[in-house]
Amino acid sequence: MSRFLSREAAVLDPYTPGEQPQDQQYVKLNTNESPFPPSPKVIEALSRAEAEKLNLYSDPTCKQLNAALAQRYGLRPEQVLTGNGSDELLAFTVRAFCGEGKGIAYADITYGFYKVWARLYGLASRVVPLREDFSLCVEDYFGGGETVLIANPNAPTGMAVSPTEIRRLLKENPNRVVVVDEAYVDFGAESCVPLIPEYQNLLVIGTFSKSRNLAGARIGFAMGPEELIADVNRVKYSFNPYNVNRLSLTAGAAAMADETYFLSCTAEIQKTRAFTVRELEALGFTVLPSRANFVFAKSDRIPGGDLYRRLKADGILVRHFDAPRIEDYCRITVGSREQMETLVTGVKKILEV
Amino acid sequence: MSRFLSREAAVLDPYTPGEQPQDQQYVKLNTNESPFPPSPKVIEALSRAEAEKLNLYSDPTCKQLNAALAQRYGLRPEQVLTGNGSDELLAFTVRAFCGEGKGIAYADITYGFYKVWARLYGLASRVVPLREDFSLCVEDYFGGGETVLIANPNAPTGMAVSPTEIRRLLKENPNRVVVVDEAYVDFGAESCVPLIPEYQNLLVIGTFSKSRNLAGARIGFAMGPEELIADVNRVKYSFNPYNVNRLSLTAGAAAMADETYFLSCTAEIQKTRAFTVRELEALGFTVLPSRANFVFAKSDRIPGGDLYRRLKADGILVRHFDAPRIEDYCRITVGSREQMETLVTGVKKILEV
Repeated sequence: MSRFLSREAAVLDPYTPGEQPQDQQYVKLNTNESPFPPSPKVIEALSRAEAEKLNLYSDPTCKQLNAALAQRYGLRPEQVLTGNGSDELLAFTVRAFCGEGKGIAYADITYGFYKVWARLYGLASRVVPLREDFSLCVEDYFGGGETVLIANPNAPTGMAVSPTEIRRLLKENPNRVVVVDEAYVDFGAESCVPLIPEYQNLLVIGTFSKSRNLAGARIGFAMGPEELIADVNRVKYSFNPYNVNRLSLTAGAAAMADETYFLSCTAEIQKTRAFTVRELEALGFTVLPSRANFVFAKSDRIPGGDLYRRLKADGILVRHFDAPRIEDYCRITVGSREQMETLVTGVKKILEV
Repeated sequence: MSRFLSREAAVLDPYTPGEQPQDQQYVKLNTNESPFPPSPKVIEALSRAEAEKLNLYSDPTCKQLNAALAQRYGLRPEQVLTGNGSDELLAFTVRAFCGEGKGIAYADITYGFYKVWARLYGLASRVVPLREDFSLCVEDYFGGGETVLIANPNAPTGMAVSPTEIRRLLKENPNRVVVVDEAYVDFGAESCVPLIPEYQNLLVIGTFSKSRNLAGARIGFAMGPEELIADVNRVKYSFNPYNVNRLSLTAGAAAMADETYFLSCTAEIQKTRAFTVRELEALGFTVLPSRANFVFAKSDRIPGGDLYRRLKADGILVRHFDAPRIEDYCRITVGSREQMETLVTGVKKILEV
């Protein structure tokens, strides 16, 4: 910290991203990327002709991509907004709906960035513990006026809440916004997007990073009532209007045009997840019921931190969170079948079975 | 605005970007893009193989591109930070060094986003008028403790301040940060980067949008003492760590490896600028002395707003700012020689000469 730092920046508690070694020497199962390349339609769309237009600004309104998203999700284009990854959209969203006298509520165990944004904007945070079994009960949020932020499925547990439950939360207090972060929804959970026409206070956040195989393109999207989308746009245009680059806009639109590939990739991940769960359970692991492209697992035979370190030493990267309630667990991305076989072999070696 | 909007978001006064018609029917001279495609090395680097890796996250530290920038500018990699366009970096920078009790100072006529960020963070702003001839005198900033934000060359005037003057400002008060926004510096102005090793309180912001022909890739960079860069990173990691996508990182590094193309493009723009100035002056225009890839010009024979509208009706887009002191002017991007000949012909037609 320099002596010039503002007080507001001094109190920040920055997020620590998962390790991103650039040398590809690891079996990388630590940041929930897809093991599959983008759709062939994406590769084709990223043509020489598109690259030659990079001297021109991208469309700040992201019109074409918003239209493709709207069509896919049965919404109007005004109900969609595209961002530089869902992190950026969440940062805009929290600014739009939280501030002095408007706090934020989120689970004790969830995406670690929520508390970072709360700090960024100096918000009063209500941290709501998950139940003993890591399930989220919407009743635990009742009676509060805070904007609610729910990752569904949750990270790092992978566990999902049903739209029926979210509906109860939306109805309990129609005077606050409920943000449902659906980064992992496409791997077998149920989306809350169909609730959007019914509720004024629901915002759903999606991403191309997981189920659309485009983590490196940085594309997120927000969906909700037109008025809420306009509010988030208000923040975007006060921060960085040209927030999505040309090639990502092109890639995103092409990805949306290949539903078949999307369905085959997400189905394959779910099949491989089932395989991984079976294998880990056979080795005595407790594995939480995951609807995401990762599993959260612990073994009585080795502490989570030790497993993480020993796997890393053997060239396999998973993620361990040194935090209360979850320090026994490792979060393991569901990669390709081959990668998961390598993981299982690696675990067996460490456990000496 | 919805009823859910926070008070902090309600008071925002969002930026209005220049028109970005997506149909290419205009001679587009309104947002200071380069008329030249990116370097052939960029096109080559954006290969199929790179696109196929888009399922993996980009490097949040932007290590390779920072290293290329550091080498080009004679700095250490720790003195450089890459962002999603210079707008994002400026938004991070203002948060890092401004807040309660730490206001911001900028010119009355300058990049219109500065006041938007001041509002975003609720800052006390000291708006310092440019002199009668639109020159910026650093003395006018003396005696204040605010963080100073200077576009150099300035927009929309195109006029530059010398590093000798900036040095005086840095020395006058070493206890505040001076941010020099050098978006347009490569078209004949002098950069303040050589001052970085001498001063703890200087931060220089650059962009690939103008002189590197990559507006659509959204790449900006900040350069300064390691401590200030760490401060800006602190904000980045509290907002959106994966802020630059894979293909833009690749494009940026390739652009930095083609200094020859960069020099030839920027020289050509300066030649075409001289042509444009000559032609407009011959038509009786007053043209401010520009060191940027645009000119700021007015005619006694037609108000700025009228000229903008009539040019637009004829298929030529320039930018007009309906603001005190500059409403008589139009800002005209220096495009290709052919585009500027079209502009001159268009102006002659409107003025009936």
